[in-house]
Parts: sequence; C-alpha cells; structure tokens
Amino acid sequence: MASSRSIVGPNAPGVADGLDAAALDGAFETIDEAEELLAGAAEGAPPDLVGPALVALTSGGKRLRPLLLVLSAHMGGPEREDLLQAAAAIEVLHTATLIHDDIVDGAQSRRGVPTTVAQYGREIAAATGDFLFAEAFSKLAGIGDPRLVRAFAVASVGLASGELEQYRANGANVEVEAYLEHIRKKTAGLFQVACVAGATLGGLSIVQIDALASYGQALGIAFQMSDDIMDLVGKPGLMGKGIGTDLVEGTVTLPVIFALKEGDAATIRSVLTDPSPSLELLEAGIEAVLATGAVARTEAWARGEIDAALRDLVLLPDCPEREFLESVASEVVGRDA
Amino acid sequence: MASSRSIVGPNAPGVADGLDAAALDGAFETIDEAEELLAGAAEGAPPDLVGPALVALTSGGKRLRPLLLVLSAHMGGPEREDLLQAAAAIEVLHTATLIHDDIVDGAQSRRGVPTTVAQYGREIAAATGDFLFAEAFSKLAGIGDPRLVRAFAVASVGLASGELEQYRANGANVEVEAYLEHIRKKTAGLFQVACVAGATLGGLSIVQIDALASYGQALGIAFQMSDDIMDLVGKPGLMGKGIGTDLVEGTVTLPVIFALKEGDAATIRSVLTDPSPSLELLEAGIEAVLATGAVARTEAWARGEIDAALRDLVLLPDCPEREFLESVASEVVGRDA
Repeated sequence: MASSRSIVGPNAPGVADGLDAAALDGAFETIDEAEELLAGAAEGAPPDLVGPALVALTSGGKRLRPLLLVLSAHMGGPEREDLLQAAAAIEVLHTATLIHDDIVDGAQSRRGVPTTVAQYGREIAAATGDFLFAEAFSKLAGIGDPRLVRAFAVASVGLASGELEQYRANGANVEVEAYLEHIRKKTAGLFQVACVAGATLGGLSIVQIDALASYGQALGIAFQMSDDIMDLVGKPGLMGKGIGTDLVEGTVTLPVIFALKEGDAATIRSVLTDPSPSLELLEAGIEAVLATGAVARTEAWARGEIDAALRDLVLLPDCPEREFLESVASEVVGRDA
Repeated sequence: MASSRSIVGPNAPGVADGLDAAALDGAFETIDEAEELLAGAAEGAPPDLVGPALVALTSGGKRLRPLLLVLSAHMGGPEREDLLQAAAAIEVLHTATLIHDDIVDGAQSRRGVPTTVAQYGREIAAATGDFLFAEAFSKLAGIGDPRLVRAFAVASVGLASGELEQYRANGANVEVEAYLEHIRKKTAGLFQVACVAGATLGGLSIVQIDALASYGQALGIAFQMSDDIMDLVGKPGLMGKGIGTDLVEGTVTLPVIFALKEGDAATIRSVLTDPSPSLELLEAGIEAVLATGAVARTEAWARGEIDAALRDLVLLPDCPEREFLESVASEVVGRDA
C-alpha cells in the first residue's frame, strides 16, 4: 500500500534513508485508513456540502498532521479505532481552517486547485468550513477522552485568532515577535496538538507528551519559515502556489521582515501595499528581498527550531517512529535535500 | 437579583403567573453567574476580538438556551460549576452561529444593534465567530463529559448545514417539509441540545432526557414559527427587527409558504425575488400574506408543537422548574399574552 500514499512517507525522496520502513507499516496502514474516513466525513455532510467537503478533504494535502499524530501514538499503545478517528479529525479541522482562511483572503487556488470559496462561493464555503469544524469535534467526542477535546479546542481558539493577519501591510513595521506569535497560533498550534493528541492516545508519560508538544511546536514554526522561503525561491507550482504569493497578498513573512530592515525597504513596501502589483513590481520586490541576507537568516532560524525539535525527541523511546519524526524534522529545512 | 436579569424570567409579563418564583432562585442565580462567564469568555479572546466578542455576547439576547439548560439540570442534581460552564457554552455557541449567519446574509442589525459584520467587517466577524465556536467547545471540554461534547457537536453540524438558506427565493416553491427540515437544524437543534445537556448534567433518567429532548425540539420549532409570524405582524423594533425583514431578505417562512399557495402569489414572489424591494412593494407583499389564512395556519401549527412539548413534560418530576418550562412553552405562542 505504501506506494499509493499521497503523504510524506518513507518513499518520499530523502526521508527514508536509513529507516526501517517495514517497522512503520502499522502507522502507515492507520493513515491510509484515516484517509478513507475523510471521504466518509464528506459523505455525511448535508447534501449541498458533500461535493465541496469532498473536494476540500481529498485535494492532495500532505497529511502531515495525521502523520505526526499517528507516529506519536505508535510510540505507545493506542486503541486503533480511537486513533483513526483522531487522525481524521485533525485533518478535518485543518481543512476547515484552510477554507475559512481562503474566504478571508479571497484566495483563488490552493495546492493547484481552485479554493472552496472560488469554486462554490462564500455561502457554501462558510457553511462547509463550519460543518467540517463541527465534524472534527464530533469525531473527537466519539473518542470520549476530554483531554483530546480540550487540546483541539485550545488550538482552535488560537487558529481563530490567527485568522486575522494583523501583520498585514499598510507598509506596517512588523516585528519578529509579532510574527512568531502569529505563526505559533496559526501553524504550530495544530502541529503541536497532533503530537499531543497522538501521545495521549498512545498512553505515553507526561514527560514524553510534553517533549512531543515541544517538538510539534518547533517543527510547526520551522515548517512555516520554510514555507515563507519557498514563496521567494521555490519553483512555481511545486507547492500549488505561485512565487511571491505572500508579497502579493501583503503578508509580511519572516524573510520580508528581515529584508525590510536591511534592504531596499521602499520597493518591498510598495509591493506589499499595492493591492494588485504588476509582475514587474513583484519581481523587483522579490529581488529586493533576495539581495539581502534575509533568506539565509530565516533558514538559520528554522534550523535552530529543528535542532530544538530534535533535542526534544531524545526523551522518546528509541524506535522507528522516533527516527521517522527525526527525518520529518530534518526534511522540513531541506537538510537531506 | 431577579429584577436585574435580562432574560425571560418570572418577572416577565405573563410568565410568572401562579409560579413559585422563590423556588427557582437557584436556577436564576446560576443563569446570572453564567452571564458573567460570557463577559469572561470575551475578555479571554485575542486582543482584536475582545471588543467584537463582548458586544456580540452582551447585546441583549434573551438567554433562552441557557435558561432551558439550567432549568432542565435543576430538575436533577447538577454539579454547579459544570452547569455554569455548559450554560455559558450554549450561549457562546449560539452567538457564534448568529455572527456567521449575519456574514452570509449581510445583515446590518440584530436586536436593534449593528451586527458584528456591519460594525467590524467580514474578517473580524469571521474570526470572532470561529473564536466563539472554539471557545464553546473549550468550555465543554473542561466539563469532561463526552456526552455533552457529542450533543453540541451534532447540533453544530446541523447548524452549519442550516446556514445555507436553501429555501431562498428565486420565486422558488418551497415545501413545508423542506422548511421544517431547515428549522429543525437551524433553530430547534440548539433548543434541544440545551435541554439534553441540562438533563444530562442533572443526572436525569434516559426517559426523562428523551422527554426533554423532544420538548426542546418542539419548543424550538414553535419558537421559529412564532418568530416568522412576528416578522409579519409584530411591532417594528420590538424584536430589534423591522417588519418584513424575512420577505426583504427573500426568506420563505411558513406563513409565506402557506400564502403562496392560497393568496396573491405573484405579489409575494415579486417581493421575495427583488433584491431591494421598495417600501411600497414590501407593504403590498405583507398585505398579500395577511389577506390569507396563512398566519392563522402557522399559529395553529405552532400551538400543535407546544401541545406536544407540554405532553413531553408530563414525564418530568412535578416541580417549579417543570412549571416554568411549561410557562416558557405557553409564552412562545402568546397564550398568556
């Protein structure tokens, strides 16, 4: 089954090196089954939302959050059915937040396909997001462990506050601390809850759960910084995203914060504040960022987070799942690439 | 304390007659304290959402859902702190859905004050709704009873699907069954979960919980029908709503469905399908509905629901809380008015 997976797996370039892939078969089978639950969740939607929910849930996410959840759980001894539901729930919740974010941003495409709001309009998109949000908690409620509901609810509160991209342009001076605060809520919170929920279901010790929480947060922060860099130097279409999308949307990312301080701030600000910058202006803006050490500084920060994440894992049992979590972390900053 | 309450209480005209108000003091104190939790929930919001959340949570709702929840619980022996959190949670969830509904509808005012979307814009309103939604589940998670989370989650799934007002105009022929299906999800679901959650926390028997579930649903249906009628015959401003709002918004309510079948359908349709009908056209539309027996038929249906609700209550202990639930039901259709 491994070859049919759409997630980051041992067959992905760079990740599997030196890993005992067979030892992880249990975890990957669980993720494959959770994948089927996603389609099931969509099919349980009210009639007009089945289509939009199905498209949103099955349009090629990396399933990184279910992966983290299942690997964390498999370091202990989870109940299989509970684990499946939780793995599906976290992807459902993640999908709900993407749909709502895209409404707020008016985003046209994601992962190379039209967003729910672009394809179905605001009303359907809003209702689909709300449905998936409720559905995630419905799945969690079925597990019957209040600790999971609490962890997801706390993360959701953070996600809602993260919806407001406060550090949007107007040529605003965004400080690093505000950026970090934002991505902790917006990206790292769900990575963290994936690890915590998995570790809880696996019955790990409090110390181990804390270590995985810390790993998840650091990984999420590094992941977001890596995403910020990709927006400046990545290959168009590779992430289903064009180059410079963040700049066009006026989103001030970490490399942009650095570049505003040390580079041609006027050019960068003019892209950020232009609601619809020309391709020429966008290219000039990207060039202005790349002319500085901003990308290198961001990479260094992300590597620091990854180093912290790897240190956290030392507290976990030495097992194939831990090795795989290590590989995931290294992969995020392209160490093995 | 009773006189300071903003909710439907024994001091409200018509409700208290013949009731032993003192015997209900415990329930009303609980509701007063839950009211304070609402402000607390807003204050725990991310900085930019504190204001919008506070306005939304404290702008004069009738607190009918917390009232149902607390009265249901007080027929048994609830844990006080759990009950407070649940009573606050249901109002928080209700408020979240109102905010999202108002975004979808582009509604300008509710209960006589500007809506969150009108006052703060779409981005803030969407994030506030999502925050409150998550906050409701956060409160429930603190109680630690998975049955409550499940009941709220199921109701939320229904609410999300109810967001789509499928029976919106285009001169569409809406059938009574579609209308009922819609209001079961959109209005009655939360009334029902209020009763079920309260009864569960009170430790009532399964039979009693079922009876209260059935009461809550019938009450919610009657409540919505009563609201539909108020939109046609009520005093402007009394509900914080103008007259004919549903018609202007193209919402096909039960009296409108009846009137379309037996009256001047052409005039009614022309109001429903006009995105911005003139006052003259609106008045003609209202007159066209009132010229039929539509309001009387809707009232009769609502009374039938209330009769069913009252029969359900027979299975509950004979106590002041039950008497008050009976009064609430009678009040909904204006029997004592």
